[in-house]
Amino acid sequence: MTEVATTVRPFRWFGDDLTGGIEMLDQRRLPGEEIWEPMTTVSQIADGIRDMKTRGAPAIGIAAAFGIAFGVRERGQMDEQMFALLAATRPTAVNLFWALDRMRALGDVGYPALLEEARAIMADDAANNLAMGRLGATLFGTEARILTHCNTGGLATGGYGTALGVIRATHAAGRLAGVWVDETRPYLQGARLTTWELQKDGIDCTLITDSMAAHFMKRGEVDGVIVGTDRVAANGDVANKIGTYGLAVLCKHHGIPFYVAAPISTIDLGTANGDAIDIEQRAASEVTELSGVVIAPDGVHAAHPAFDVTPATLVTAIVTERGIARAPYTESLAQLVRAEP
Amino acid sequence: MTEVATTVRPFRWFGDDLTGGIEMLDQRRLPGEEIWEPMTTVSQIADGIRDMKTRGAPAIGIAAAFGIAFGVRERGQMDEQMFALLAATRPTAVNLFWALDRMRALGDVGYPALLEEARAIMADDAANNLAMGRLGATLFGTEARILTHCNTGGLATGGYGTALGVIRATHAAGRLAGVWVDETRPYLQGARLTTWELQKDGIDCTLITDSMAAHFMKRGEVDGVIVGTDRVAANGDVANKIGTYGLAVLCKHHGIPFYVAAPISTIDLGTANGDAIDIEQRAASEVTELSGVVIAPDGVHAAHPAFDVTPATLVTAIVTERGIARAPYTESLAQLVRAEP
Repeated sequence: MTEVATTVRPFRWFGDDLTGGIEMLDQRRLPGEEIWEPMTTVSQIADGIRDMKTRGAPAIGIAAAFGIAFGVRERGQMDEQMFALLAATRPTAVNLFWALDRMRALGDVGYPALLEEARAIMADDAANNLAMGRLGATLFGTEARILTHCNTGGLATGGYGTALGVIRATHAAGRLAGVWVDETRPYLQGARLTTWELQKDGIDCTLITDSMAAHFMKRGEVDGVIVGTDRVAANGDVANKIGTYGLAVLCKHHGIPFYVAAPISTIDLGTANGDAIDIEQRAASEVTELSGVVIAPDGVHAAHPAFDVTPATLVTAIVTERGIARAPYTESLAQLVRAEP
Repeated sequence: MTEVATTVRPFRWFGDDLTGGIEMLDQRRLPGEEIWEPMTTVSQIADGIRDMKTRGAPAIGIAAAFGIAFGVRERGQMDEQMFALLAATRPTAVNLFWALDRMRALGDVGYPALLEEARAIMADDAANNLAMGRLGATLFGTEARILTHCNTGGLATGGYGTALGVIRATHAAGRLAGVWVDETRPYLQGARLTTWELQKDGIDCTLITDSMAAHFMKRGEVDGVIVGTDRVAANGDVANKIGTYGLAVLCKHHGIPFYVAAPISTIDLGTANGDAIDIEQRAASEVTELSGVVIAPDGVHAAHPAFDVTPATLVTAIVTERGIARAPYTESLAQLVRAEP
């Protein structure tokens, strides 16, 4: 597992187990500043998720698990309020609910055991990403030029990454020619975070605005697209960062494969299809301002759906840590979810 | 022509005809600051175009025409150097070459006559935009929700605008329900300029990131897309701001009409098809920085093609001041270009 150790993570432990907590890397300040914010309470964790100090579906789930452990330490027992507080932070990422369910299922077993479980969720996620990477790398031929959107790397997960983990594994296998990184407006996770991770790993990448992807596809310079996901419905519809759906349409038009890297924890068999996925609407100011700079006239109306839904018909394959699912997804996803880990 | 007077323009005259010049609105500083920079020499004009103080194909052509007049005033006669200097500023916009040809065709008739010609080019452009608007507005039904990219308004032209002129005319006809404005990274012409113009006119608009267009198309909230162009090839292939081609593909997928507003001066029968159009590559720093804020790690490689080419097969219709062209464009465009004005 040395590969995991080499990638950045969104959290690190500080202090002793009994009185310490996690430091959360404030990803809004990257790449300019690396600020680690210490957190020891459930409300600090909830604020950190809501304000997007940490982001990425798996990382959100991990943070929430630590939040429950801290909540029990503060209050002496589990209560519904701490689950509700965390559940209300970001509605789209199913990992959040998955991680909360896993903590709840363990029961009110006390802070030390719950802390252990939160750490296990983080370690499992990193291990799953390595497995997903190994499987996903088989999807690409030699000299692959892969395009990705948003950040799905060590920063978004327990380590290594989902879609970016597949890209790392393709690189490790010697088959990666380059990475196109969508800047991913409005939060610029691609420009700020994905390039930063790839640069640390010495992997060649080219930053582009989201609007340039079609141009490079048309020129034959993109061999495949792989993205992460916040939730996969039972039928294979995929919710992910706004801009993903457009990429999938462009892939179809250009005959380019469109892959999704999804830990089993993001597959939600309880959601029949994409229409049932709640799309988070975020503040318009996140569109009209950029890193604190106002880029539009005062009072202009802006829309900010944080996610979109890509229909399963546009998805070439979904990579999980247990195998690669292809259409019909209703069967293939259910099979993988129900398989013994 | 009162409509023209109500829209903003990229230039205004200062001083008397003999010793005065144009003030160029520095569009890079909008919407925060309105700074008018006085220019009286050909090299000031060339710098203003190259540095994108003014932009938009028609406006570039108009500025270049003033540049030739000023060059003749400075040097006492026309010379090849002044044409070469202006021609080298932005390679993609054909209006630049069209305007230079029109000035050259007039001959070395002295500064006052050349100044008159530059003013005529500006006035003609505004009049053509009004005609294009009237024709283009017939393309939309009632309650039209129109999406546009970049800025094609008064700021980009001699007044009123090309694609934005069509939107203005649709509004004037009482058939506009709203405008989706793509922010248009990397220069944010949509966020900074188009919203600013629409706000001044009291036209409802919603700013979105470029990556959101597909999402709103899928939801059935976009009735049509209209964009401007820097050059239309003889076969109907359209060069325009990066991001245009992707929009055209998305329109095809969703069954949404994709229109181009093109003054006759942007139709280049001398260019057979889009492959022959020179695509300007601009500095990577325009992608990695945004309004002076660095948004990516130091040393990250970025690509910056300023334009892309949309094949004629994806273009529903091309609106000119002389009529609306439809496929096959090789015939329809040639007919319009050769028609008497």
